[in-house]
Amino acid sequence: MAETGFVLWLTGVSGAGKTTIASRLAADLRALGRRVDVLDGDELRRSLCRDLGYSREDRERHAERVAFVAERLSRHGVVVIVALITPYRSARRRVREAIPRFVEVFVKCPIEVCAARDVKGLYRKARGGEIPNFTGVSDPYEAPESPEITVETDREPPDASIRVIVKWLRDHGYING
Amino acid sequence: MAETGFVLWLTGVSGAGKTTIASRLAADLRALGRRVDVLDGDELRRSLCRDLGYSREDRERHAERVAFVAERLSRHGVVVIVALITPYRSARRRVREAIPRFVEVFVKCPIEVCAARDVKGLYRKARGGEIPNFTGVSDPYEAPESPEITVETDREPPDASIRVIVKWLRDHGYING
Repeated sequence: MAETGFVLWLTGVSGAGKTTIASRLAADLRALGRRVDVLDGDELRRSLCRDLGYSREDRERHAERVAFVAERLSRHGVVVIVALITPYRSARRRVREAIPRFVEVFVKCPIEVCAARDVKGLYRKARGGEIPNFTGVSDPYEAPESPEITVETDREPPDASIRVIVKWLRDHGYING
Repeated sequence: MAETGFVLWLTGVSGAGKTTIASRLAADLRALGRRVDVLDGDELRRSLCRDLGYSREDRERHAERVAFVAERLSRHGVVVIVALITPYRSARRRVREAIPRFVEVFVKCPIEVCAARDVKGLYRKARGGEIPNFTGVSDPYEAPESPEITVETDREPPDASIRVIVKWLRDHGYING
Protein backbone atom coordinates (compact mmCIF):
# COMPACT_ATOMS: atom_id res chain seq x y z
CA MET A 1 0.00 0.00 0.00
CA ALA A 2 2.81 2.39 0.93
CA GLU A 3 3.94 2.90 -2.64
CA THR A 4 0.49 3.48 -4.08
CA GLY A 5 0.02 7.04 -5.19
CA PHE A 6 -2.87 9.20 -4.16
CA VAL A 7 -4.05 12.79 -4.42
CA LEU A 8 -4.55 15.15 -1.50
CA TRP A 9 -6.72 17.97 -2.78
CA LEU A 10 -6.53 21.07 -0.58
CA THR A 11 -9.51 23.35 -1.12
CA GLY A 12 -10.09 26.65 0.65
CA VAL A 13 -10.20 30.38 0.08
CA SER A 14 -7.19 32.56 -0.68
CA GLY A 15 -5.06 33.04 2.42
CA ALA A 16 -6.45 30.02 4.27
CA GLY A 17 -3.00 28.42 4.28
CA LYS A 18 -3.17 25.86 1.44
CA THR A 19 0.28 26.59 0.00
CA THR A 20 1.98 26.64 3.40
CA ILE A 21 0.42 23.35 4.41
CA ALA A 22 1.17 21.81 1.00
CA SER A 23 4.86 22.62 1.09
CA ARG A 24 5.45 21.57 4.70
CA LEU A 25 3.40 18.42 4.29
CA ALA A 26 5.38 17.59 1.14
CA ALA A 27 8.63 17.83 3.11
CA ASP A 28 7.26 15.57 5.86
CA LEU A 29 6.04 12.93 3.40
CA ARG A 30 9.37 13.01 1.53
CA ALA A 31 11.07 12.42 4.87
CA LEU A 32 8.97 9.24 5.11
CA GLY A 33 10.50 8.13 1.82
CA ARG A 34 7.61 8.97 -0.49
CA ARG A 35 7.81 10.60 -3.87
CA VAL A 36 5.79 13.80 -3.58
CA ASP A 37 4.74 16.52 -5.97
CA VAL A 38 2.89 19.74 -5.26
CA LEU A 39 0.57 21.22 -7.85
CA ASP A 40 -0.07 24.78 -6.75
CA GLY A 41 -2.92 26.64 -8.39
CA ASP A 42 -1.10 29.95 -8.60
CA GLU A 43 2.01 28.35 -10.08
CA LEU A 44 0.00 26.46 -12.69
CA ARG A 45 -1.57 29.72 -13.80
CA ARG A 46 1.89 30.63 -15.07
CA SER A 47 2.31 27.39 -17.04
CA LEU A 48 -0.27 24.71 -17.82
CA CYS A 49 -3.21 27.06 -17.23
CA ARG A 50 -1.86 30.41 -18.32
CA ASP A 51 -4.68 30.82 -20.85
CA LEU A 52 -7.30 30.69 -18.09
CA GLY A 53 -8.94 33.41 -16.07
CA TYR A 54 -11.28 33.34 -13.07
CA SER A 55 -14.71 32.84 -14.57
CA ARG A 56 -16.63 29.82 -13.37
CA GLU A 57 -15.92 28.05 -16.66
CA ASP A 58 -12.20 28.80 -16.49
CA ARG A 59 -11.96 27.71 -12.87
CA GLU A 60 -13.61 24.43 -13.79
CA ARG A 61 -11.15 23.93 -16.65
CA HIS A 62 -8.31 24.77 -14.31
CA ALA A 63 -9.45 22.11 -11.85
CA GLU A 64 -9.93 19.61 -14.67
CA ARG A 65 -6.39 20.08 -16.01
CA VAL A 66 -4.85 19.90 -12.56
CA ALA A 67 -6.83 16.72 -11.93
CA PHE A 68 -5.50 15.24 -15.15
CA VAL A 69 -1.88 15.85 -14.15
CA ALA A 70 -2.47 14.75 -10.55
CA GLU A 71 -4.12 11.49 -11.57
CA ARG A 72 -1.35 10.75 -14.05
CA LEU A 73 1.37 11.33 -11.44
CA SER A 74 -0.46 9.29 -8.83
CA ARG A 75 -0.49 6.28 -11.17
CA HIS A 76 3.27 6.13 -10.74
CA GLY A 77 3.23 6.01 -6.97
CA VAL A 78 3.55 9.75 -6.44
CA VAL A 79 1.75 11.47 -3.58
CA VAL A 80 0.29 14.54 -5.23
CA ILE A 81 -0.68 17.53 -3.10
CA VAL A 82 -2.94 19.97 -4.91
CA ALA A 83 -3.38 23.47 -3.53
CA LEU A 84 -6.24 25.04 -5.45
CA ILE A 85 -9.16 27.15 -4.24
CA THR A 86 -11.62 24.97 -6.24
CA PRO A 87 -14.60 26.97 -5.02
CA TYR A 88 -17.35 25.00 -6.80
CA ARG A 89 -18.76 21.76 -5.48
CA SER A 90 -19.50 20.55 -9.00
CA ALA A 91 -15.83 20.89 -9.98
CA ARG A 92 -14.68 19.10 -6.85
CA ARG A 93 -17.15 16.32 -7.53
CA ARG A 94 -15.79 15.92 -11.05
CA VAL A 95 -12.16 15.82 -9.98
CA ARG A 96 -13.07 13.26 -7.34
CA GLU A 97 -14.63 11.11 -10.04
CA ALA A 98 -11.52 11.44 -12.21
CA ILE A 99 -9.07 10.36 -9.51
CA PRO A 100 -9.32 6.86 -8.02
CA ARG A 101 -7.52 7.61 -4.74
CA PHE A 102 -8.74 11.07 -3.83
CA VAL A 103 -8.57 12.73 -0.42
CA GLU A 104 -10.33 16.07 -0.07
CA VAL A 105 -8.85 18.35 2.56
CA PHE A 106 -10.90 21.37 3.52
CA VAL A 107 -8.48 24.09 4.62
CA LYS A 108 -11.03 26.00 6.61
CA CYS A 109 -10.60 29.60 7.68
CA PRO A 110 -13.27 32.31 7.95
CA ILE A 111 -13.08 34.90 5.18
CA GLU A 112 -12.80 37.65 7.81
CA VAL A 113 -9.64 36.08 9.22
CA CYS A 114 -8.11 35.64 5.74
CA ALA A 115 -9.01 39.22 4.83
CA ALA A 116 -7.46 40.50 8.05
CA ARG A 117 -4.23 38.52 7.40
CA ASP A 118 -4.28 39.51 3.71
CA VAL A 119 -0.68 38.38 3.19
CA LYS A 120 -0.69 39.23 -0.52
CA GLY A 121 -2.88 42.35 -0.25
CA LEU A 122 -5.46 40.70 -2.49
CA TYR A 123 -8.50 41.10 -0.24
CA ARG A 124 -7.93 44.84 0.00
CA LYS A 125 -7.78 45.07 -3.78
CA ALA A 126 -10.76 42.77 -4.26
CA ARG A 127 -12.89 44.75 -1.83
CA GLY A 128 -11.82 47.93 -3.57
CA GLY A 129 -13.12 46.47 -6.82
CA GLU A 130 -9.67 46.07 -8.37
CA ILE A 131 -9.91 42.27 -8.69
CA PRO A 132 -13.13 40.84 -10.14
CA ASN A 133 -14.27 37.25 -9.49
CA PHE A 134 -12.44 37.07 -6.18
CA THR A 135 -13.53 34.06 -4.15
CA GLY A 136 -15.22 35.05 -0.91
CA VAL A 137 -15.63 38.67 -2.00
CA SER A 138 -17.24 38.84 -5.44
CA ASP A 139 -17.37 35.11 -6.19
CA PRO A 140 -18.80 32.25 -4.12
CA TYR A 141 -16.93 29.64 -2.12
CA GLU A 142 -19.03 26.54 -1.71
CA ALA A 143 -17.67 24.86 1.41
CA PRO A 144 -17.21 21.07 1.26
CA GLU A 145 -20.03 19.06 2.80
CA SER A 146 -18.16 15.85 3.51
CA PRO A 147 -14.42 16.25 2.97
CA GLU A 148 -12.20 13.41 4.17
CA ILE A 149 -10.25 15.85 6.34
CA THR A 150 -10.92 19.32 7.71
CA VAL A 151 -8.21 21.53 9.19
CA GLU A 152 -9.07 24.82 10.84
CA THR A 153 -6.22 27.21 10.24
CA ASP A 154 -7.66 30.02 12.35
CA ARG A 155 -7.58 27.72 15.38
CA GLU A 156 -4.34 25.78 14.97
CA PRO A 157 -0.83 26.43 13.60
CA PRO A 158 0.22 24.73 10.31
CA ASP A 159 2.12 22.00 12.17
CA ALA A 160 -1.05 20.95 13.96
CA SER A 161 -2.99 20.86 10.67
CA ILE A 162 -0.26 18.72 9.16
CA ARG A 163 -0.40 16.32 12.10
CA VAL A 164 -4.14 15.94 11.55
CA ILE A 165 -3.59 15.12 7.88
CA VAL A 166 -0.70 12.70 8.47
CA LYS A 167 -2.66 10.91 11.19
CA TRP A 168 -5.63 10.50 8.87
CA LEU A 169 -3.39 9.11 6.11
CA ARG A 170 -1.82 6.59 8.52
CA ASP A 171 -5.16 5.57 10.00
CA HIS A 172 -6.55 4.93 6.52
CA GLY A 173 -3.52 3.04 5.17
CA TYR A 174 -2.36 5.68 2.69
CA ILE A 175 1.06 5.92 4.31
CA ASN A 176 3.19 3.80 6.61
CA GLY A 177 5.82 4.89 9.10
CA MET B 1 21.12 6.54 -13.93
CA ALA B 2 18.64 3.72 -14.56
CA GLU B 3 15.94 5.29 -12.43
CA THR B 4 16.26 8.76 -13.85
CA GLY B 5 13.26 9.73 -15.90
CA PHE B 6 13.44 11.08 -19.41
CA VAL B 7 11.14 11.97 -22.28
CA LEU B 8 11.12 10.27 -25.67
CA TRP B 9 9.31 12.62 -28.02
CA LEU B 10 8.04 10.85 -31.16
CA THR B 11 7.37 13.32 -33.95
CA GLY B 12 6.09 12.43 -37.40
CA VAL B 13 3.06 12.72 -39.67
CA SER B 14 -0.23 10.93 -39.15
CA GLY B 15 0.10 7.24 -39.99
CA ALA B 16 3.89 7.15 -39.69
CA GLY B 17 3.59 4.67 -36.81
CA LYS B 18 4.11 6.80 -33.70
CA THR B 19 1.33 5.21 -31.63
CA THR B 20 2.32 1.65 -32.57
CA ILE B 21 5.97 2.26 -31.71
CA ALA B 22 5.03 4.08 -28.49
CA SER B 23 2.87 1.26 -27.15
CA ARG B 24 5.26 -1.57 -28.04
CA LEU B 25 8.27 0.35 -26.78
CA ALA B 26 6.42 1.06 -23.54
CA ALA B 27 5.87 -2.67 -23.05
CA ASP B 28 9.54 -3.42 -23.69
CA LEU B 29 10.74 -0.76 -21.26
CA ARG B 30 8.30 -1.95 -18.60
CA ALA B 31 9.74 -5.44 -19.07
CA LEU B 32 13.11 -3.91 -18.16
CA GLY B 33 11.59 -2.77 -14.88
CA ARG B 34 11.00 0.88 -15.72
CA ARG B 35 7.96 2.96 -14.93
CA VAL B 36 6.61 4.10 -18.29
CA ASP B 37 3.81 6.37 -19.40
CA VAL B 38 2.58 7.11 -22.90
CA LEU B 39 1.14 10.51 -23.73
CA ASP B 40 -0.65 10.10 -27.01
CA GLY B 41 -1.65 13.23 -28.91
CA ASP B 42 -5.00 11.88 -30.06
CA GLU B 43 -5.90 10.65 -26.58
CA LEU B 44 -4.99 13.97 -25.00
CA ARG B 45 -7.31 15.74 -27.40
CA ARG B 46 -10.13 14.01 -25.55
CA SER B 47 -8.92 15.14 -22.11
CA LEU B 48 -6.24 17.71 -21.25
CA CYS B 49 -6.42 19.37 -24.67
CA ARG B 50 -10.04 18.98 -25.62
CA ASP B 51 -10.44 22.73 -26.03
CA LEU B 52 -7.78 22.81 -28.76
CA GLY B 53 -8.05 22.54 -32.52
CA TYR B 54 -5.45 22.24 -35.26
CA SER B 55 -4.37 25.83 -35.92
CA ARG B 56 -0.69 26.56 -35.53
CA GLU B 57 -1.38 28.32 -32.24
CA ASP B 58 -3.45 25.43 -30.89
CA ARG B 59 -0.88 22.85 -31.96
CA GLU B 60 1.78 24.83 -30.11
CA ARG B 61 -0.38 24.97 -26.99
CA HIS B 62 -1.02 21.26 -27.31
CA ALA B 63 2.72 20.57 -27.43
CA GLU B 64 3.31 22.91 -24.51
CA ARG B 65 0.75 21.18 -22.29
CA VAL B 66 2.00 17.74 -23.18
CA ALA B 67 5.55 18.90 -22.41
CA PHE B 68 4.40 20.15 -19.01
CA VAL B 69 2.92 16.79 -18.08
CA ALA B 70 5.85 14.85 -19.55
CA GLU B 71 8.43 16.90 -17.67
CA ARG B 72 6.52 16.55 -14.44
CA LEU B 73 6.26 12.77 -14.78
CA SER B 74 9.92 12.44 -15.75
CA ARG B 75 10.94 14.17 -12.50
CA HIS B 76 9.65 11.12 -10.67
CA GLY B 77 11.71 8.60 -12.59
CA VAL B 78 9.09 7.85 -15.22
CA VAL B 79 10.07 7.18 -18.83
CA VAL B 80 7.57 9.24 -20.77
CA ILE B 81 6.87 8.39 -24.40
CA VAL B 82 5.09 11.17 -26.25
CA ALA B 83 3.40 10.42 -29.58
CA LEU B 84 2.47 13.76 -31.10
CA ILE B 85 2.79 15.02 -34.68
CA THR B 86 4.43 18.26 -33.45
CA PRO B 87 4.87 19.56 -36.98
CA TYR B 88 6.57 22.86 -36.15
CA ARG B 89 10.27 23.15 -35.41
CA SER B 90 9.67 26.11 -33.12
CA ALA B 91 7.32 24.07 -30.91
CA ARG B 92 9.77 21.17 -30.77
CA ARG B 93 12.54 23.58 -29.83
CA ARG B 94 10.44 24.95 -27.00
CA VAL B 95 9.50 21.56 -25.60
CA ARG B 96 13.15 20.55 -25.75
CA GLU B 97 14.02 23.62 -23.70
CA ALA B 98 11.31 22.77 -21.15
CA ILE B 99 12.47 19.20 -20.59
CA PRO B 100 15.93 18.51 -19.14
CA ARG B 101 16.30 14.94 -20.45
CA PHE B 102 14.74 15.09 -23.88
CA VAL B 103 15.21 12.60 -26.71
CA GLU B 104 13.66 13.53 -30.05
CA VAL B 105 12.70 10.55 -32.19
CA PHE B 106 11.85 11.29 -35.80
CA VAL B 107 9.34 8.67 -36.95
CA LYS B 108 10.05 9.11 -40.61
CA CYS B 109 7.76 7.93 -43.38
CA PRO B 110 7.01 9.59 -46.72
CA ILE B 111 3.59 11.21 -46.90
CA GLU B 112 2.77 9.10 -49.97
CA VAL B 113 3.31 5.90 -48.01
CA CYS B 114 1.19 7.15 -45.09
CA ALA B 115 -1.54 8.28 -47.47
CA ALA B 116 -1.50 4.90 -49.21
CA ARG B 117 -1.75 3.03 -45.86
CA ASP B 118 -4.38 5.53 -44.60
CA VAL B 119 -5.35 3.26 -41.70
CA LYS B 120 -7.88 5.74 -40.31
CA GLY B 121 -9.11 7.05 -43.66
CA LEU B 122 -7.93 10.52 -42.74
CA TYR B 123 -5.78 11.23 -45.79
CA ARG B 124 -8.66 10.50 -48.11
CA LYS B 125 -10.86 12.92 -46.19
CA ALA B 126 -8.10 15.53 -45.96
CA ARG B 127 -7.41 15.38 -49.69
CA GLY B 128 -11.11 15.62 -50.32
CA GLY B 129 -11.15 18.84 -48.30
CA GLU B 130 -13.15 17.36 -45.43
CA ILE B 131 -10.38 17.91 -42.83
CA PRO B 132 -8.70 21.31 -42.80
CA ASN B 133 -5.21 21.89 -41.32
CA PHE B 134 -4.16 18.32 -42.00
CA THR B 135 -0.40 17.88 -41.63
CA GLY B 136 1.25 16.91 -44.88
CA VAL B 137 -1.81 17.78 -46.94
CA SER B 138 -3.03 21.27 -46.07
CA ASP B 139 -0.58 22.04 -43.24
CA PRO B 140 3.22 21.82 -43.18
CA TYR B 141 5.38 19.20 -41.51
CA GLU B 142 8.80 20.60 -40.74
CA ALA B 143 11.08 17.56 -40.55
CA PRO B 144 13.59 17.48 -37.69
CA GLU B 145 17.08 18.59 -38.65
CA SER B 146 19.02 16.89 -35.87
CA PRO B 147 16.86 14.47 -33.91
CA GLU B 148 18.62 12.16 -31.48
CA ILE B 149 17.10 9.15 -33.25
CA THR B 150 15.52 8.56 -36.65
CA VAL B 151 13.49 5.47 -37.50
CA GLU B 152 12.26 4.85 -41.03
CA THR B 153 8.97 3.06 -40.83
CA ASP B 154 8.58 2.57 -44.57
CA ARG B 155 11.82 0.57 -44.60
CA GLU B 156 11.65 -1.46 -41.40
CA PRO B 157 8.96 -3.16 -39.28
CA PRO B 158 8.06 -1.65 -35.86
CA ASP B 159 10.23 -4.20 -34.01
CA ALA B 160 13.29 -3.00 -35.90
CA SER B 161 12.49 0.65 -35.12
CA ILE B 162 12.13 -0.25 -31.46
CA ARG B 163 15.49 -2.03 -31.46
CA VAL B 164 17.10 1.12 -32.87
CA ILE B 165 15.57 3.22 -30.11
CA VAL B 166 16.43 0.81 -27.28
CA LYS B 167 20.01 0.48 -28.52
CA TRP B 168 20.39 4.26 -28.58
CA LEU B 169 19.01 4.52 -25.03
CA ARG B 170 21.45 1.86 -23.80
CA ASP B 171 24.42 3.37 -25.62
CA HIS B 172 23.67 6.76 -24.08
CA GLY B 173 23.09 5.53 -20.54
CA TYR B 174 19.34 6.22 -20.40
CA ILE B 175 18.54 2.60 -19.61
CA ASN B 176 20.37 -0.44 -18.31
CA GLY B 177 19.73 -4.10 -18.99
